[in-house]
Amino acid sequence: MTSEAAFIEALRGLASDPAARGLIDDAAMLEVGGTRLVLTHDMIVEGIHFLRDDPPEDVAWKLVAVNLSDLAAKGARPIGALLGYSLGEDEWDRAFISGLGSALQAFGLALLGGDTVRPPLGAPRSLGLTAIGEATGPVPSRGGARAGDLVWVSGSIGDSGAGLRAARGEIERAEALIERYRLPRPRLEAGQALASMVNAMMDVSDGLLIDLQRLAQASGLAATLELDAIPLSADYIAALGEDRDARLTAAAAGDDYELLFSAPPEKAADLLALADELGLPFSRIGRLDSGAGLIVSDSAGNIPLPDRLGYQH
Amino acid sequence: MTSEAAFIEALRGLASDPAARGLIDDAAMLEVGGTRLVLTHDMIVEGIHFLRDDPPEDVAWKLVAVNLSDLAAKGARPIGALLGYSLGEDEWDRAFISGLGSALQAFGLALLGGDTVRPPLGAPRSLGLTAIGEATGPVPSRGGARAGDLVWVSGSIGDSGAGLRAARGEIERAEALIERYRLPRPRLEAGQALASMVNAMMDVSDGLLIDLQRLAQASGLAATLELDAIPLSADYIAALGEDRDARLTAAAAGDDYELLFSAPPEKAADLLALADELGLPFSRIGRLDSGAGLIVSDSAGNIPLPDRLGYQH
Repeated sequence: MTSEAAFIEALRGLASDPAARGLIDDAAMLEVGGTRLVLTHDMIVEGIHFLRDDPPEDVAWKLVAVNLSDLAAKGARPIGALLGYSLGEDEWDRAFISGLGSALQAFGLALLGGDTVRPPLGAPRSLGLTAIGEATGPVPSRGGARAGDLVWVSGSIGDSGAGLRAARGEIERAEALIERYRLPRPRLEAGQALASMVNAMMDVSDGLLIDLQRLAQASGLAATLELDAIPLSADYIAALGEDRDARLTAAAAGDDYELLFSAPPEKAADLLALADELGLPFSRIGRLDSGAGLIVSDSAGNIPLPDRLGYQH
Repeated sequence: MTSEAAFIEALRGLASDPAARGLIDDAAMLEVGGTRLVLTHDMIVEGIHFLRDDPPEDVAWKLVAVNLSDLAAKGARPIGALLGYSLGEDEWDRAFISGLGSALQAFGLALLGGDTVRPPLGAPRSLGLTAIGEATGPVPSRGGARAGDLVWVSGSIGDSGAGLRAARGEIERAEALIERYRLPRPRLEAGQALASMVNAMMDVSDGLLIDLQRLAQASGLAATLELDAIPLSADYIAALGEDRDARLTAAAAGDDYELLFSAPPEKAADLLALADELGLPFSRIGRLDSGAGLIVSDSAGNIPLPDRLGYQH
């Protein structure tokens, strides 16, 4: 267990309120006067979650998007946000504000408040956002899956991870992939429509493999993932191929901000109809059964798990 | 204007939702299903808001207390909090959790969620907390004062600033003052009782002078402060005296987390009765009139303002 996992475990001991959902979900659910509020707080740190030379406008977008992705996974409509901002060079700060304005407008999100601090010179920027949303229906947790559920994922997987490598110059430059890395699109509309159809839902932020493992664990079930069913984009395939290695790389890359959800097999037709309606593909990538653990298989049968399933906290 | 002030001014341009209160208050007010939620997010940074060798338990307390002080100033009862945490050495982190647990328990605050990040090695810690409260009555802003109001402050002023100097070894060690610096007590009970009696209220976090100036400015009024009426504790007087210099130092020190409020003169008896009931002194320290600006006077008449009115953003 990493010390971060131990820290979160210790925090869990303090989070006894049912609204905290045992800190297992990425968001809290608070009932206020008959309204179900969904609350999340995500931070991004320079050198860890974004690169020093990423455009500040895109960093602002990403800060908003990663938080709204948590709301999307709980079927919530965004209401407002509080910003925790570390000041740096004026020019960077001005560009950040411009990007923040674009993101707020794009998502219809109200900036409600927050705090700015000036950290000691040379300290990496640490930015936080609290997003508040309202659930219009059920608020699915990641622990609600049932044995026999099929596992689905929205959109395509791996693009953002490949985009990060392209931005770093590790692979050939590919603008569409870099854009997926810098400007993730939280699946808000899909999340709100899916909330009443699924048994469990979360967003894919740390990697499909590790996030599916968490969903299965939180639900007390075993997950089987069909590697060949993982949706890869044409851009991803052009950059990294689609063989087993390329698929495992995509599945462990993280930063996808797609929705991962489970539903009984009889919901499949409705889910595919919804995907059509939204113009966003939903792919069946596996199933959940009694037991525990994660199995990955392809045409050769079960295959060994990679050492790294995703971003490990 | 500092670049932080310019940044906040630019943010203000994005915060058009009425719930944001123009980012003039330290907290946002969001109506949800007939309930008035008060939301605040404050950050504390190592080397700026706390010292590297402050006990981690006390840093946790302070992070909670500074946020709850914002809720107190809006008359809100705390409900829950989201934590944004930068991991460091395991031992420090463990001690922080222990202090966090004490603070949550002391204030009846539920830990609802949050995020942990591991910043690059050697980066100063940056900690954030979002606190959510519920207002049981009116939610006073800092801009609601009226001409003729008397200005009041709770408790005593300057202790925390003197405590910081004592902790740094700049003045003689005084445990009671250091405790005021490390373990501030948000005036939650007083804030809730005062909310329906005052025209304007805020907490004193950056310094009495600068915060009174802000209250006057937000209300479109001129403030007059009677320096000799500023409440100093016996510990403060023992450490730094009570002459004009000592009083100006206290009034510009900050980190007091007392309540600063204004009310019509005819409320004075009720306010003093409430102070008695709470066992927390309220002191009349000045008044608000038509006009603009800040005047400080003592027995010698109006005196020049110090160069520094408090912690300047």
